[in-house]
Order: sequence, then structure tokens, then C-alpha cells
Amino acid sequence: MRVDRGQGLRIVNTFGHQVVDFWAFDARDLGIFLSMEHTRSTLSRLTPRAGDILVDNRREPMLAFESDTSPGVHDTVIAPCDPARYAKLGCAPGHASCADNLHRALEYLGLAVHSCPASFNLWMNIPVTSGGELEWRETVAKPGDSVVFRALIDCIMVMSACPQDVIPINSGRPVSAHYAVIAP
Amino acid sequence: MRVDRGQGLRIVNTFGHQVVDFWAFDARDLGIFLSMEHTRSTLSRLTPRAGDILVDNRREPMLAFESDTSPGVHDTVIAPCDPARYAKLGCAPGHASCADNLHRALEYLGLAVHSCPASFNLWMNIPVTSGGELEWRETVAKPGDSVVFRALIDCIMVMSACPQDVIPINSGRPVSAHYAVIAP
Repeated sequence: MRVDRGQGLRIVNTFGHQVVDFWAFDARDLGIFLSMEHTRSTLSRLTPRAGDILVDNRREPMLAFESDTSPGVHDTVIAPCDPARYAKLGCAPGHASCADNLHRALEYLGLAVHSCPASFNLWMNIPVTSGGELEWRETVAKPGDSVVFRALIDCIMVMSACPQDVIPINSGRPVSAHYAVIAP
Repeated sequence: MRVDRGQGLRIVNTFGHQVVDFWAFDARDLGIFLSMEHTRSTLSRLTPRAGDILVDNRREPMLAFESDTSPGVHDTVIAPCDPARYAKLGCAPGHASCADNLHRALEYLGLAVHSCPASFNLWMNIPVTSGGELEWRETVAKPGDSVVFRALIDCIMVMSACPQDVIPINSGRPVSAHYAVIAP
């Protein structure tokens, strides 16, 4: 949805244990978007936390990560799930995916992007071992945990409650999440 | 340059201590490219190593990481340097950058991409601390260290000897690197 400069977006893990993939785009040019690799470079940290400024693919400030009532376990290194992911997991065609959800959400606004940017995977629990291995664990988010992003420019923000039900990242039971736009 | 299916590309850290940013694209469609986030997801590891298959943004095999005579310290989480990076570091306009090098290399082939994908940063030494912080260290690559990628489809491959001379990732002294195409 459109979130104007100064407005905030609160994303709520209503029932807990749910990963929410998140993207943000410049409302004037969807080729400018929240960039995980530029944000990691700017913060010198794998994962943003409350108080951080998140940047776009031109390294310009796009969002303030204003608050986080959860334990702060999020991911920036894993690609959003897509039809190819579920095909390789042996699912029948037609399994819902975060990438499809992004394209549908933009289509609903009359917008489109050629490819799906890397997502900020809220509440996705992917610890990095000392050897650089990635583990796929259940979220530690509790019911009612929430984050707030404040728009520093006019944005299109998109969320997808991750429909992954093959591996246990959503505790095997994907559920809904909710959001609210907050006044400036 | 173009590297046909079955051909290999050897990249040599000729003088040591040099980071080389690397990209690969499907020669038939530059919207299909080597993807760091899909490769990390497929490998369940932050950084590929010799023996791994690297995938594109459709999760399809694109390159075999055939050999690596270096200590294997590479990076996939940092964005390639670009004019915005050097502006924020206080450099005068016109500083060379890996993103500009990508665009010029493609232009030389009569090709273009709208935005610069995340790069595979060969020999870039960015350890992740237990708290998820990223450290910017000097490379541990020695003179003559090399890697070989084998093309699994017809590819356009691009390399940039990173011109970063403000922070110490190239030991403060960027130098040339070299390559050779290897027959099938």
C-alpha cells in the first residue's frame, strides 16, 4: 500500500510464529527500492534493528525502523519464496508464495516490477553459525509482537505473510498477520 | 565477456590483496542473473565454496564454482561500490567504482542493465561476528590465488577489480587482476 512520507506502518505478528516478507519502493519510481545489500553495507550489520535507518539501492535513507516489540530476530540474506522454491520442494504447481504475493499486491495498485527484490524477512530465524552455515529455525515471535517503519519518502510498502508450510520456519502452520498505517 | 556453456573462467588475484566483484548474466536475457540471495538460500550458507553450484534469480543452476586456490574468504552480503558510496566517503565526483565498471563492461558489449545486481565479492574479507556485526578487513588473498567458474549456460560474465582505496579492504592499494577463458 501507499505510505506517504511521515506516515508509519505497524506490522503485527497477530498470532505469533509467522514470518512476514517486507518490501518498500519509491512511490515515484519502482526501480528505487529498499535494498538489503545496501542497508547491510551502510549499517555494517547483517540485520537492522529498531533505531536504524534503512536505505534504498541508491544508498539514500528510505525508512526509519522506529520500533520493534519482538526479540528482534529477522533475516536479510534469504530470498523470498517463489514458485521455483515450491517446485524444488516437490509441491504441486499453484502453491502460494511471497514473490507471487508481491506481484499481486502491486498489480492491485496498477503497478508492476520486472523482478522481485530481496526482501526484509521479518521474524525469519536464520542464525549464521561460526562456519557461515545458515540454519532454518522456527520464529521466536510471540503473538502481538510488532514492528513500525516510518516512511522518509513517499513509499509503496508490501507485506506477505509467508505461506511456507513445507519447512518449519512458520512452525509448520502459516497464519495471517495484520498492519495499520500510523499518522505522521 | 561472453563465456559459453562448458567454458570456464579463471580469475587470478595477480598481485594479491585485491577484491574482485563478479557478476554473471544469462546471455539470452540479462534479467536472469547470478543471484546472491538465491544462492545463499540454495546452499544454506553465506558464502559459496569450490564444489558448489551457483544459481540465478530463478533458482536455476548457472555456474559451477570449480576450483579455488585461495583460502576461500569471499563475501556475498555487501553491495558493490558505486558513485554514491564514494560521495558518502567524501571523495570528489568521478571516483571509479565497481557498479560503474559493470555498466561500462556491458556497454562495451552493446548491452545494458537497469540496476546493478548484488555481486559475488571475490576475496572480500567481511567476517560476521557472533552478534551479526560485519567487519571490513583486508583480504587474505595471496599473489596468484585464483578461482574458476564453469558456465552451465551461455553467460555474460563481468569482473571489476575493486577500486576502493578509502577503506582498507584492498590493503589501501587497489591493483589489477587478470582472467583467462578456459576451453570446455
